[in-house]
Amino acid sequence: MKESTKKKFTVRFEPSGLKVQVPSGTVLLEAAHKAGIYLSSICGGDGYCGKCKVVIDQSEQVQTRPTPLLTPDEIRENVVLACQTKVLSDMTITVPKFHSLETSQILMDTDAHRFSELAGEVRAGLFKYDPLVQKIFVQMPPPTVDDHTADHERLYLAIREQIDAPIMQTGFRILQKLSRLLQSSHYKVTATIGRRGETTEVIEVEAGNHCKRNFAVAVDLGTTTVVAHLVDLTNAATVDTEATYNSQINFGEDYIRRIIYAEENDAFDEMQNRIVNDVNNLIVTLASRKKVDLQDITTAICAGNTAMVHFLLNLDPTRIRREPYIASAGFIPPIRAAEAGIQINKRGLLYCLPSVAAYVGSDIVAGVLTTRIFTKKHISLFADIGTNGEVVLGNRDWLVCASSSAGPAFEGSGVKHGMRAGAGAIEKLAILDDGSIELKTIGNTRPVGICGSGLLDTLAELFINGIIDRTGRFNPAPIEPASGHLTSRKAGLPSQDNWCGAKHLAPRFTWGSRLTEGDEGRQFQLVPAGNNHQEILITQADINNLVRSKAGVFAAIRVLMESTQTKPEDLDAIYLAGGFGNFLNVEQAVTVGMLPDVPVEKIQFVGNTSIAGAKTVLLSRKALDAAEKIAKSMTYFDLMSHPGYMDEFTRANFLPHTDLSLFPSVMATTQDT
Amino acid sequence: MKESTKKKFTVRFEPSGLKVQVPSGTVLLEAAHKAGIYLSSICGGDGYCGKCKVVIDQSEQVQTRPTPLLTPDEIRENVVLACQTKVLSDMTITVPKFHSLETSQILMDTDAHRFSELAGEVRAGLFKYDPLVQKIFVQMPPPTVDDHTADHERLYLAIREQIDAPIMQTGFRILQKLSRLLQSSHYKVTATIGRRGETTEVIEVEAGNHCKRNFAVAVDLGTTTVVAHLVDLTNAATVDTEATYNSQINFGEDYIRRIIYAEENDAFDEMQNRIVNDVNNLIVTLASRKKVDLQDITTAICAGNTAMVHFLLNLDPTRIRREPYIASAGFIPPIRAAEAGIQINKRGLLYCLPSVAAYVGSDIVAGVLTTRIFTKKHISLFADIGTNGEVVLGNRDWLVCASSSAGPAFEGSGVKHGMRAGAGAIEKLAILDDGSIELKTIGNTRPVGICGSGLLDTLAELFINGIIDRTGRFNPAPIEPASGHLTSRKAGLPSQDNWCGAKHLAPRFTWGSRLTEGDEGRQFQLVPAGNNHQEILITQADINNLVRSKAGVFAAIRVLMESTQTKPEDLDAIYLAGGFGNFLNVEQAVTVGMLPDVPVEKIQFVGNTSIAGAKTVLLSRKALDAAEKIAKSMTYFDLMSHPGYMDEFTRANFLPHTDLSLFPSVMATTQDT
Repeated sequence: MKESTKKKFTVRFEPSGLKVQVPSGTVLLEAAHKAGIYLSSICGGDGYCGKCKVVIDQSEQVQTRPTPLLTPDEIRENVVLACQTKVLSDMTITVPKFHSLETSQILMDTDAHRFSELAGEVRAGLFKYDPLVQKIFVQMPPPTVDDHTADHERLYLAIREQIDAPIMQTGFRILQKLSRLLQSSHYKVTATIGRRGETTEVIEVEAGNHCKRNFAVAVDLGTTTVVAHLVDLTNAATVDTEATYNSQINFGEDYIRRIIYAEENDAFDEMQNRIVNDVNNLIVTLASRKKVDLQDITTAICAGNTAMVHFLLNLDPTRIRREPYIASAGFIPPIRAAEAGIQINKRGLLYCLPSVAAYVGSDIVAGVLTTRIFTKKHISLFADIGTNGEVVLGNRDWLVCASSSAGPAFEGSGVKHGMRAGAGAIEKLAILDDGSIELKTIGNTRPVGICGSGLLDTLAELFINGIIDRTGRFNPAPIEPASGHLTSRKAGLPSQDNWCGAKHLAPRFTWGSRLTEGDEGRQFQLVPAGNNHQEILITQADINNLVRSKAGVFAAIRVLMESTQTKPEDLDAIYLAGGFGNFLNVEQAVTVGMLPDVPVEKIQFVGNTSIAGAKTVLLSRKALDAAEKIAKSMTYFDLMSHPGYMDEFTRANFLPHTDLSLFPSVMATTQDT
Repeated sequence: MKESTKKKFTVRFEPSGLKVQVPSGTVLLEAAHKAGIYLSSICGGDGYCGKCKVVIDQSEQVQTRPTPLLTPDEIRENVVLACQTKVLSDMTITVPKFHSLETSQILMDTDAHRFSELAGEVRAGLFKYDPLVQKIFVQMPPPTVDDHTADHERLYLAIREQIDAPIMQTGFRILQKLSRLLQSSHYKVTATIGRRGETTEVIEVEAGNHCKRNFAVAVDLGTTTVVAHLVDLTNAATVDTEATYNSQINFGEDYIRRIIYAEENDAFDEMQNRIVNDVNNLIVTLASRKKVDLQDITTAICAGNTAMVHFLLNLDPTRIRREPYIASAGFIPPIRAAEAGIQINKRGLLYCLPSVAAYVGSDIVAGVLTTRIFTKKHISLFADIGTNGEVVLGNRDWLVCASSSAGPAFEGSGVKHGMRAGAGAIEKLAILDDGSIELKTIGNTRPVGICGSGLLDTLAELFINGIIDRTGRFNPAPIEPASGHLTSRKAGLPSQDNWCGAKHLAPRFTWGSRLTEGDEGRQFQLVPAGNNHQEILITQADINNLVRSKAGVFAAIRVLMESTQTKPEDLDAIYLAGGFGNFLNVEQAVTVGMLPDVPVEKIQFVGNTSIAGAKTVLLSRKALDAAEKIAKSMTYFDLMSHPGYMDEFTRANFLPHTDLSLFPSVMATTQDT
C-alpha cells in the first residue's frame, strides 16, 4: 500500500502531551521522533539495547515483537520497546522520565558555566585579542571632484587604516549595495569583516555605528551533548551558555552506529538536519534569553569529533568507520553559516576547528590549545572522556595522540541510571565510614540519575569499600562496613556543607540489604525510592561498562607512553577533560586506574576544553593559526592496528590494573582483595 | 485603468514578421523593444533625435505627436517617430532597414577577426602563460591505513605538486561532494582552479580527465557594440569572435543618457538585463557555432567603459554622470559569473579588468596593456575612439589620461548614414582626381552605410578636395575637381584591386550636382541610389558631429601633452584604437586634425585593444597584476574642470586646427582655403 493511502493514527505521548499522526504500521520509535521526542536508543533501533522502553497506556491493538530485554513485571505493566512496536491504532504512550530526552527540555549546563572563563584566561596569556569576525566603524571623507577614488576602494582604504588587511574581498551582493549605502550614510558605516585564511572579507556594511552589537556562538558538537556559548565579541565575555542532547541520539548512541544508520537508510540529510537543528535551538535559546538579534551574531565556531563535524556539514563520514579510516576533510575552510543551515546573520561565517584524524577531532585540538601542552617544555598528558576517550601526550616539541572507543559510559549512556551532567544528576558520591551514602546532585534537586563524576565516584567507592572486587564483580558475600581502612583516600571529600540532601536519602543499611539480584544480575542501591524520586541503582552491567571505558582510556595512555618512552614520573601534568559534572574528584580517576598514578596535585580537571578552545580561536586569529599548527603536527596512533593495544586493554580491565605496581598510591590505601 | 484590464493590441513588425501584444496606449518604441526589435534612439525616447522612424503600413487608428523631424514626404508615406506614437489598434509596421538593430541579426565582426591575434603577441612577449582559470588532471594515491590524510587535504597536496598555490580555498558545495567523487573516480579527477587575488579556488572537481575542454569568453562592453571572443584556454587560441549591438541603445546612444533614463525610470535592473542578455547571446552563438558546451566555458572576462561595467553588475552608476563623478568600484573582485547572470559554467568566474576613473574605464587599461606603452622608455600616445574618446600619454615611468565626450559619430551614431563596422559598411572611401568616388565595403557587399574609417576618409577627402572648408562647412560654390594638388596625401591609398564595386557606384559627377540642399541643410551624395541599395549621403550636421568628435579627441591630447610638456616630436608612437573598420588610413586622422602631426609611420591602428587586453589578462595572472598596476598608477585629468580644455576644444573645431602650425604636413599637401 502506498504511504499516502495508508490509514493514519494519532499517537499521544505523555507526560508532554505531544501528538503525532502517522501511517498505520509506523514503528513507534519513529513516531516518537516525528513528535519531537528523542528516546534513548543505543542500538539505533535494532532491538537489542532495550533503551527505548515506553508504556502503552491506551491502544486498541498492540503489535510488538517478543524481547528478552523486558522483565515479566514490565510486560505486565504494558512496557514495550518503541523500536519493536508498530502503530496499528490510535495510542496513548507514556515516556518514562528517565529515558526521554525531550528537545523542549534544554538543560542548563552548569559545567559550561563553571569553565566559561577558561577561554579568556588562555587568550590573555597566549594570543592577541583579534576576533575572526569584527565590526569596525569606518568614517570616510566623501568623494570630491579632486578625490575621485571609487567607493569600493575608498572603503578598503578606510578599513586598512584600522586593521591589517593586505588581501581584501567583498561579496557581490555587498558590492552592489555599497555605493548607495555609503551615500545615504554620509560615508559613515559599520563594516563587518571576517578572516578567511589570508583574506579579509567585507561580510556586511551597515549605515551608522553598530560596533557594540557583535556576537558569536561557540559550539561543542558532542556525540551525546551539544553545548553552546554566546560570546560578546566586543569584550570577549561569555554572555550565556546552554546545552542540549544531540538529537541524533536515537539513531545510535555512538557515532559509528549513526554512520551505519545513515548509510543503510540514506539518512545523511536527516543526520545533518538533526544536529543543525540542535545547534539552531541552542542559538535561538541563547539569543532570545539575552535579547540578542540573530543578525548580530556574526560568527559560529564549532569544535567536535570528526564524525559530528562531518554530519553538521553533510560531508561523507562513511570512511570514518571503515578502512582506510579517514575524514573527508580535516581542515575545513570558513563558509557562510547559512550554507550549512546555521541560523545566524545570513552572511555570517561558520568556522570549524581543524582535526587530526578520523578519530581525533577538532575537540581534541581545542583541548591541546586550551591546556597549552603544545607550549610547555615538560611532558603533559591530556585525556578527554566523552563518548570516546581521546588522549594526547607531548610538549612543545612533539605531540602524539590516540583514541579509544571508551564508549559513552561516563557520559551516562549504557548505564542504567546514567545521565548527562544536567539538573538532578548525582555528580558526587561517597560511602561514609558508617556505611551511609552521601551524595550531591547538580542543582541540588532530587536525584534523577548519575552523571560522569558521580559514576567515577561510585566505581571508586564501591571498589575501595570492597563492595566490588578487582575484576569489578560484586563480592559474592555481603560485607559489613568496617571503619578506618579508607581514611586516606577520603581526605579529598568536601565538607558536608557542600552536600545536598544526602543523609536522609541514604539511611544506614548494610551492604547486604542494598545488594540485590535484579533482572540484569546483581545491582547495588545507591538511593532508595522516595516520595518524589525513583530508586537509583548501579548494576553489574553498568560497572562492567565503566571498567571497560576506563580500561580503554588507560590502555591508550599506556600505548602513547610506551611508544614515546614516557614514564609516569616524566609527566608534569595530567589534564582530564569531559562533561563529567562540576566537581570531579580527579583522585578517583587514579583509584579506578583510568589515569596513571601521579601525585594528585599534578592532575587537573579542565571541564569542556572543546568549547574553551573554540572560544579561544574565535577571539584570536593567532589562536586559529596555532590550532592549525597543532592539528598538522600531531602524530596519530591507530590503536586498532597497534600490536600492543589489546594486551594493554585486557590488562587494564581490572581495578585499578592487573599490574598493581603501576598504582602504588592506590595499593597503599586499599586492602588487597 | 489598470494595466491588466486594458485592451490589448497586436503589433506586427516587418520585414522580420515579429509580433507583440501590448496594452492599448503603449508607446510604439516600447512595443518594438518588447518584440525584441531595437530601434536606434539617441534621445532615449524624448522625441528630438528623430532616429526611431518607422512606417505604419496598416492601423485603424494612429495617434502620433506632430514633430518637425519628419519631412512632408515622410508624413505622406506614413512615417512616424515610434517614440511619439501610441498603439491604439492592431498595427503593421515596417522598420526601415537602416534604423533597425535587430538582436537576431548578429553581425560578424571582421575587425575582431583581424586583431584577434594581438593578445597572443603581447602575451608571448611579456607575460607567462598562466590562465586565470585552469583545468588540471590530478591523480592521487588513494588513502590507506598508513596514509590517512583526509580527502580535501589530499587534493590540495596533489594540486600543489602541479601549480604554485600557497593559499587555497574550496567552495562548500564542492567540499560536500569531494569525497564521494574521489572514491568513485579512484582518485583521478580534473580540478578546475581559478585565481581570486592571492587565493586559488577549487572551482570544480570532475571524475576523469577533462583538461582538453576549457574555454573562456573575453568581452568588450562597448556603449554601442558588444564584442566577444571565444578562447581555448588550453592553447590560448581565439576560436571564434562575434559582435552585437548593445541593446541598451534605445535608452540613449551614450551612456550618460542611459544613466539618466535608468534613474528616472528605476530601470537599473532592465539595463543590467539588456547588457547581460547581449553577452549571453554572444556566448550562446559562439558556443553553438563551435559546438562548445557552456559548462566548459569556465571564465568570462570583461573590459569596457566604467558605466557599462556598472550596468553589467548592477552597481550604482549615477555618480558617473554627476558630481563628484566617481565609480562605485574600480577594482572589482572576481565573482561567480552566474551571480551576474552570465551563462557559462555555473561555478565559472567573471573577471572585470580594473578601471581608472568614472570616464576612463577598464577598456583603456586594456589598451595600455595591449600597446605596452607602460613598458617603454619613450613616450607613446594611445587614443581609443568609441562613443567617448579616451587618450593616454606616457611611458614606463608615468601615465596620464583623459576622456573627451567625443560622441559616437565615429561609431556611426549621430550620422545620417552612419553605422558600425559591420557587413555593408563603407570602410574606405577616396575621391579620385577625376572626381569619381572609390569605396570599399565590409564584406564587399552593396553599401548600406558608413562606418568609422569610412567617415574619417569622407571627412578628410571632402576637406582635402576643398568640398568643405576649414570650419567644416560645405563650400558655398561648387568647385570643379582639379587634378594634381592632392597627390601626396593620396599616396597611401591601396591599389584598386583591393576595392570593391566602387567605380560603377560613383560615376563622374561635378560637386555641384552631388551637393544638394536637403531637409537638414546641405548634403553631399557619396553613393547614388541603385537598384538594390539606397542613396548614401553625408550631411552638414554629420560633418559638424565628426568635427566636434575629432576636436574633442585632439583637445584632450593637447591638454595631456601641454600638462606634461610633451612635444609632438617627443612622441615615439601613436596607437589609435576603436571599432573603425578593417583598414583605417591613419594618415587621415592627421589630415582632419584628430591626431598630432607626426610621421605616418609612427601611427599604428591597433583595432579593439579592449578585447585584446582582456584576452591577455585571461591568459596570464601576471597580466592581471600588470593591469592593476596600470590602473593604480595612471593620473586622471578631468577635462571638464580643466581650465585649458574648452579653449583647446574650440581651437580644434577647425580642419585640421585653428593653429595651422600644428599641422605642417597637412599644410604641405592641402591648399589653404
